Amino acid sequence: MQAFTYYMPTRVICGRDCVLSRGALFAELGRSALIVTGKSSAKNGALADVLSALEANGQTATVFDRVTPNPTVACVREGVALLQAAGADFVVAVGGGSPMDAAKAIATLAVQPRSDEEVFAGGYEARALPMAHVPTTAGTGSEVTPYAILTNDAGQTKTSITSSAMFPRLAFLDGKYMAHLPVSSTVNTALDAFSHAVEGMLSRNATPMSDALAKESLRILYPLLQKTAGELTIDERDELLYASMLAGMTIAQSGTTAVHGMGYSLTYFYGIDHGRANGLLLGGTLRLCEKKKVPALEEILSACSDTLDGVCATLDALLGQRESIPRARLEEFAVRAMSNKNIKKSAYEPTAEEVKTIFFSAFPAS
Amino acid sequence: MQAFTYYMPTRVICGRDCVLSRGALFAELGRSALIVTGKSSAKNGALADVLSALEANGQTATVFDRVTPNPTVACVREGVALLQAAGADFVVAVGGGSPMDAAKAIATLAVQPRSDEEVFAGGYEARALPMAHVPTTAGTGSEVTPYAILTNDAGQTKTSITSSAMFPRLAFLDGKYMAHLPVSSTVNTALDAFSHAVEGMLSRNATPMSDALAKESLRILYPLLQKTAGELTIDERDELLYASMLAGMTIAQSGTTAVHGMGYSLTYFYGIDHGRANGLLLGGTLRLCEKKKVPALEEILSACSDTLDGVCATLDALLGQRESIPRARLEEFAVRAMSNKNIKKSAYEPTAEEVKTIFFSAFPAS
Repeated sequence: MQAFTYYMPTRVICGRDCVLSRGALFAELGRSALIVTGKSSAKNGALADVLSALEANGQTATVFDRVTPNPTVACVREGVALLQAAGADFVVAVGGGSPMDAAKAIATLAVQPRSDEEVFAGGYEARALPMAHVPTTAGTGSEVTPYAILTNDAGQTKTSITSSAMFPRLAFLDGKYMAHLPVSSTVNTALDAFSHAVEGMLSRNATPMSDALAKESLRILYPLLQKTAGELTIDERDELLYASMLAGMTIAQSGTTAVHGMGYSLTYFYGIDHGRANGLLLGGTLRLCEKKKVPALEEILSACSDTLDGVCATLDALLGQRESIPRARLEEFAVRAMSNKNIKKSAYEPTAEEVKTIFFSAFPAS
Repeated sequence: MQAFTYYMPTRVICGRDCVLSRGALFAELGRSALIVTGKSSAKNGALADVLSALEANGQTATVFDRVTPNPTVACVREGVALLQAAGADFVVAVGGGSPMDAAKAIATLAVQPRSDEEVFAGGYEARALPMAHVPTTAGTGSEVTPYAILTNDAGQTKTSITSSAMFPRLAFLDGKYMAHLPVSSTVNTALDAFSHAVEGMLSRNATPMSDALAKESLRILYPLLQKTAGELTIDERDELLYASMLAGMTIAQSGTTAVHGMGYSLTYFYGIDHGRANGLLLGGTLRLCEKKKVPALEEILSACSDTLDGVCATLDALLGQRESIPRARLEEFAVRAMSNKNIKKSAYEPTAEEVKTIFFSAFPAS
C-alpha cells in the first residue's frame, strides 16, 4: 500500500439554519470577530445569520465587505489592518471562494506579517487566527482546505499560500444561502467543484482517502452538475454543497493539477471566472487522459456513470459559447503553464505540446 | 438533506516504517512521553520503533506495559500515577484496542481527575494530554475515534468515556507490526472492524459521511475478512489496517449500536474476546434487519458484494465452534442489553424479544 497522510481537522456542520442552531460553536473561537465577506453575501442571509449567532454569544463583530473576486494582496492587507484596528481575535468568512481565501490569508498574515515580495515565498508556520467559514456558493470547497489562492501581480497569475493552520476550525454548510444564486454562478462554481474531484483523481499526490472522497463527490455531483443550468431545489443545493465540500476534502489531500495551473492565465489575463476556466480545460484534459490510457479516467467515468463523450457533452452544454482568444495568446499561456508547479503534479504528465493542444481545443480558432 | 456534523481531526500517517520516517511529528507533542502498551507489543517491533523515534527527537520516554485486555479503571489509575511520577507531558499508545483505550483514559484523567464513582458519569471537558497512537492490530479503529472503552465493574459491563480531545493528534499505520499476529487475534480484530462498519450503517446516528466511510471500509475489508483465517501478505495487512481505520472513522461519527451493547455481557461474564463477541451477534442482527426490511442492509450487502446468506456463512466459518452458554444466562444478558444506551441507537429498533432471539441464535442450545 502506498505511503500517505490524511489530515482534515475542520469541524463541518451541515443542515438547515445550522449557523443559528449551532451558533454556540462560534464561542470557542474568541471574543471579537472580523467577518470577511463580499457585497452579495449581505443579501443572501448568511451575514445576518452570522451576526445573530455572534450577538447571541455576546461576541462583537466588525464587517470587512470589500473582498472582490480573485482577491489581491492589497485587499488582504486592508483586512488585516481593519482586524488589528478592531482588536479582532478570530475571523469568520462568509461568501464564496474569494472571501474564504481572503479570510485565510488575513488570519495568517495577521500573526505572520510578510512583505509583498515574501507573501508567495511559502514556508508559512502553522499559526493563524482561528476561523469559521460559511460558504455561500457550492464550488470552491475552501471551507475544508488549507489553501488561500490570491492574485499574484508580480507573477501575473494566481498563487496559493498554505499552512496546516489555514484549515478553518468550523465550516457551516446550509444550501439556503444559495437559493437565489444566479445561474451563471451556480454553473461556474459547480464546474470548479467537478474539476476538484476530477483533478484529485488525476493527481500524482492522490491517496486512497482522496480517491474515496473524490468518487463519493462525483457520484453526487455529476447528476446535479447536469441540472445546474436550470432550477435547483433547496435540497439539491444542499447536496451540491455537500459534494463540493467532499471535492474540497479531496484536494486538501491531493492538491490540484495542470487544469488549475493552466486556468489561472485565463482568469488573470481574460477575467474568465475561475470555475469556468477549469471547465473550459477539462474536456481536452480528459481526452488526453484517454489517449494516454491514464487508469484513473475509468474510475472517474465510473463514478459519474457516464462515458467520456457524455461527460464532454455535459461540459459543453454548461459552457455554452466559448470566449475567443487568439492562438498566439494561448501559446503564450501554454508556455506559462509549463512553469507552474501543478503541471508536475498531474498523473497524465502533459508535455508542452499537449498543454498547447488542450488550450487550442478549449477555444474556437479565431 | 439531514443535519449532521463531521469531525475527525487526527492526522493519519500510513506507510511502511512510517513511525521512523515520520517520527519528527512526535516532536510537536511534548518533551516526555508515557508509552502505554501491553506485553506483546514489545515483541512486534512497534515499541522499539517508537523509542527510536522519540530518542531521535531528544524526547524522553517511560514505558507503562501493564495494560491487560479490557482495561480496568485501576489499570488507568496506575498509568496516570506513573505518568505523573515521570513528569510525562504526552502519551503514546502502542498496541491493540486495550492499550489505545487505556492511553486515552490516562491522557484524560491526568488532567481531569475523577473519583471511581464519577469515571463513567460522562460530561468530560475537551481537555486531554496530546496523544499519538500506533495500532498493532487491525480492528478497533481506536486511533481515529474519541472513545475509550473500559471495564465498568460497578455496572458489570464495559462502558465508554469520551470527549473531542480524546481524538489522538497522530495515528501511525504500518501493517508490518501485524506480520506475526496470531490467527485468532487477526480474525477477532477483523470481526470487530467489520462490526464497526456494519453497525455504523445500522446506526440511527449514521450520516452521509459515516455511510461513505463505512461502504469504502466494507469494500476493502470484506474480501480480506474471508482470508483472515489463513496467511495474509504484508500488503493485505496494510489494507486490513486501512479498512479498520475507515471503520473507526465511521463509528467516530455514528457511534456503535445494539451489537456492541449486547456483546459487552459476553466479554464481561464469559471473557469472550470483544471482536468475537460482536461477530457472534452479527449474523442474527443482519437476519433481523432483513425481516424488518431495514434499507441499510441492501447497502451493506452491496458494499460487500455478497448475499445475506454469503455474509452469514463467512461469519460462521470464521467463528468456528461457538461457546456454550445456558439459555437462562442469555435471557439475563438480553435484559441487561435492553438498558444499554446503544440499543436506542440502532436503526432496526430491536425489541426485548428480538434481542433475546439474537442471543439464542448466536449460541447452540445447551
